[in-house]
Amino acid sequence: MAHTLQELTEYLATVGMPATVDGDASKTVTAVATLEDARADEISFLANPKYEAALHTTQAGAVIVASDQPRPDALSVIRTKDPYAAMTAIVVRIHGYRQHEQVGMSDAARVHPDAKLGANVNVHHGVTIEADVEVGDDVVLYPGVYLFKGCRIGAGSVLYPNVVVYPDCILGRRVTLHAGTVIGEDGLGYAMVEGKWHKIPQIGITELGDDVELGANCAIDRATLGQTHIGTGTKFSNLVTIGHGTKIGKHCMFVAQVGIAGSVQVGDYVTMAGKVGVAGHLKIGDRAKLSAMSGVMRDIPDDGRVFGIPALPYRQSLRATSAYEKLPETTKQVKQLEAQVAALAEQVTALQQQLAKQSERA
Amino acid sequence: MAHTLQELTEYLATVGMPATVDGDASKTVTAVATLEDARADEISFLANPKYEAALHTTQAGAVIVASDQPRPDALSVIRTKDPYAAMTAIVVRIHGYRQHEQVGMSDAARVHPDAKLGANVNVHHGVTIEADVEVGDDVVLYPGVYLFKGCRIGAGSVLYPNVVVYPDCILGRRVTLHAGTVIGEDGLGYAMVEGKWHKIPQIGITELGDDVELGANCAIDRATLGQTHIGTGTKFSNLVTIGHGTKIGKHCMFVAQVGIAGSVQVGDYVTMAGKVGVAGHLKIGDRAKLSAMSGVMRDIPDDGRVFGIPALPYRQSLRATSAYEKLPETTKQVKQLEAQVAALAEQVTALQQQLAKQSERA
Amino acid sequence: MAHTLQELTEYLATVGMPATVDGDASKTVTAVATLEDARADEISFLANPKYEAALHTTQAGAVIVASDQPRPDALSVIRTKDPYAAMTAIVVRIHGYRQHEQVGMSDAARVHPDAKLGANVNVHHGVTIEADVEVGDDVVLYPGVYLFKGCRIGAGSVLYPNVVVYPDCILGRRVTLHAGTVIGEDGLGYAMVEGKWHKIPQIGITELGDDVELGANCAIDRATLGQTHIGTGTKFSNLVTIGHGTKIGKHCMFVAQVGIAGSVQVGDYVTMAGKVGVAGHLKIGDRAKLSAMSGVMRDIPDDGRVFGIPALPYRQSLRATSAYEKLPETTKQVKQLEAQVAALAEQVTALQQQLAKQSERA
Repeated sequence: MAHTLQELTEYLATVGMPATVDGDASKTVTAVATLEDARADEISFLANPKYEAALHTTQAGAVIVASDQPRPDALSVIRTKDPYAAMTAIVVRIHGYRQHEQVGMSDAARVHPDAKLGANVNVHHGVTIEADVEVGDDVVLYPGVYLFKGCRIGAGSVLYPNVVVYPDCILGRRVTLHAGTVIGEDGLGYAMVEGKWHKIPQIGITELGDDVELGANCAIDRATLGQTHIGTGTKFSNLVTIGHGTKIGKHCMFVAQVGIAGSVQVGDYVTMAGKVGVAGHLKIGDRAKLSAMSGVMRDIPDDGRVFGIPALPYRQSLRATSAYEKLPETTKQVKQLEAQVAALAEQVTALQQQLAKQSERA
Repeated sequence: MAHTLQELTEYLATVGMPATVDGDASKTVTAVATLEDARADEISFLANPKYEAALHTTQAGAVIVASDQPRPDALSVIRTKDPYAAMTAIVVRIHGYRQHEQVGMSDAARVHPDAKLGANVNVHHGVTIEADVEVGDDVVLYPGVYLFKGCRIGAGSVLYPNVVVYPDCILGRRVTLHAGTVIGEDGLGYAMVEGKWHKIPQIGITELGDDVELGANCAIDRATLGQTHIGTGTKFSNLVTIGHGTKIGKHCMFVAQVGIAGSVQVGDYVTMAGKVGVAGHLKIGDRAKLSAMSGVMRDIPDDGRVFGIPALPYRQSLRATSAYEKLPETTKQVKQLEAQVAALAEQVTALQQQLAKQSERA
Repeated sequence: MAHTLQELTEYLATVGMPATVDGDASKTVTAVATLEDARADEISFLANPKYEAALHTTQAGAVIVASDQPRPDALSVIRTKDPYAAMTAIVVRIHGYRQHEQVGMSDAARVHPDAKLGANVNVHHGVTIEADVEVGDDVVLYPGVYLFKGCRIGAGSVLYPNVVVYPDCILGRRVTLHAGTVIGEDGLGYAMVEGKWHKIPQIGITELGDDVELGANCAIDRATLGQTHIGTGTKFSNLVTIGHGTKIGKHCMFVAQVGIAGSVQVGDYVTMAGKVGVAGHLKIGDRAKLSAMSGVMRDIPDDGRVFGIPALPYRQSLRATSAYEKLPETTKQVKQLEAQVAALAEQVTALQQQLAKQSERA
């Protein structure tokens, strides 16, 4: 569907982003694309002034720009305060969210007679739903999804292909799990008895709050007792793993390959960048920010910011990192200082002896 | 089923954990839970004195505590030397291990006529078993499991949903593979010829010993020649990967996201904490302990303990880490020392000149 | 099939590896194996002189060795410049590449009527192909593969079990994806609005060039706009993840557990060793080499080589690492220097006072 710049500008106002057209307000666009890829019937955006030159080479029909951005004469622009945010709003307006095909109940799915399914579910072929499972209204289960006995999937959730949910785990409403993600597998619970690891049954569960979205191929352990919990609105990227009994707060954001050990407590609005690791039994405060590849071995207070292995408070870490880069030089300086100090000591001793002799003579 | 504290105490004695009831020995419990979650018909445990306050607020019907732990008057306790170990024994007693539904052979599984299946196997719908595969007695294969041609699955093994075993790989008895784990995919074997990577066929296999348990979404490469091997009783958490031709000993424990390159030899009873990486062709001795996020670039002797990137012997690493935290200060001290030494050198030179003049005058 | 050493030597010559038989040229072998495992009808190789002793204990019928390698009298050898390369050529000659069973179109696959399939495709049972998908000639799709609407799979590609390709993604010719790998899931695109993460629709795609091979359980995000791209001939090991909008060049090699954030540009012929992380929006030059576990936070020029967290130029990093290992000692030296300098300062002051007194007296 085609949208005029005028209409898009009016739409932006309704979502709290006042904007104006500078150029041809009646121009129509049908899609959003990058400055590089966009064609004449597409709209693009410039958020970073660094890429300003692309305004002069883009084939886009229109571009969303900052309020004070100069524009080439021939190019129509929409001016607004935050072009990136406006672009995302316009993507929603023009493209919307992924639509899931309405397939209803496949006759090649296997649903246990003791499972309870809500209204308007889409269960693709090759899905397995075991006994005592509850699936809410409007849930989409793609091929290869396996729901073990007793688990509960909240209304509006989407489980992409090959997602597995172990027994008795609970997913809130509108949970999205990308392909290959596993919820509620056994954690690493063993006791060493007479030279062998003996398994400790993991009788707890995993619970995900509402609006949780996890990337592809994640793995969230069930608890030994009680539950592993991921709070409402929290989002993970791919290949993230959470240990047994760990509790993650609400509205957190974890980048790919984060790994959290067991029995950790993570507050709300916590950000963990890529590949962060957190050791067991720690407490990470609300709104903490953990930089990429940090290895956390101590508690972090509310609003704490850390970096490094082991993770240090951010400013200390920056200073240590900077000092580290100069460490070979510093080490050399220390060696030189040692030589200089030794030479000075000799000179001082010589002076002392000379003075002593003079005193004798005097 | 309900168990009296008396009966549980007698059971603990039979598994080598002498215990006594302090309180009402006839009280019954039906499940194990955390101090926080437990209800009046559940038993909990206190292993860490740090959480002692919870004894006064728990709703648990009984609590397993250390021999000398004071108790609130109203609370019945089981006293024993190691409350955590006793709790795990009681979990086994009350809850047992996960029971797998007896589904027999699904008519929606595809089993090649040249495959050999043992007695009492459970093959769920959507499982594929190719030619010349051997599946031992009592094996459970969940939906989405794919067994390539010629592989062998030992008796009593459990392969959770979507586990894949590549051609000719061998699993011992009672192997457990959690959902999404892949055994025997090709390793990264290529030769650069005229500007392109040419694949080296990976004609070796992967073999897992008896009682191996791997977490979810692991990936264990097959060998180029010979075999990648994981020894009897070794346990991995999630997202662990092992390179081609690597040999892991018996009864090891690897935490999540460990990655070992190819042609590594790892001894028995080795512990690798989360996210450890080991470079190719190294030798890691028996009982070595590798701390979380270590990057190992040299051999480690038997009983070696390391930390850091690159990994250093543990004590050296602790000292280096501690010195690193003070590095900005140390660097500043070196700068100050340089200024002080320069000033001293000037003063000494001045002294030498003064003395020389005095000598002349004398 | 049996091959004589004479025939294998002639074959090596045809692939640019001149070789000679030293021993019985009529001897036949039927397989390639390691020195340790090889039997009398198998050929092995010795590439690393460190393992020379094994030549005297191997049961192999023949061994490929370096041109100047001494040999036990009883052992026939093939001499050539690069024994490892010759071994890989002989593996191809004797064993060839994995053959995929010709299963044709399974009647238990679900193929949308609007999908287009090429000639000679193998579509196993349990595969799902949605509308508007295009599958090229000779493609193999193993059980559990799911192809979302509109994606295109190039001729000769092999998708191992449980591979998932999200909507509209494009795979080149002869692409190999190992089990559990996911292409084109949504990246971590959210905007924080009034205390909640709001999803930004990810309307871009992922495109893989020709001859790309990815290991097991990888995850390659689709782009927000435009495309995430992996260039022709690039190879990844297992558990690698690539963020939205990142572009990887041609003929790169990434070892297991590499993670690249979004909007990164990686050149051609780049090597990333295990567990390397690269932050968002960076540019990594052609032929760059990133050592294992490096955390890259700055651009890297063409031919750049780095190591460390944060990653430093390689030589600087080696010096810094070496200085780091001595850091506790260096810190101690600084403390000693401080004491020595303080003592010297006192001595110099004393000398100055003595001289001043002498001057007064003189």
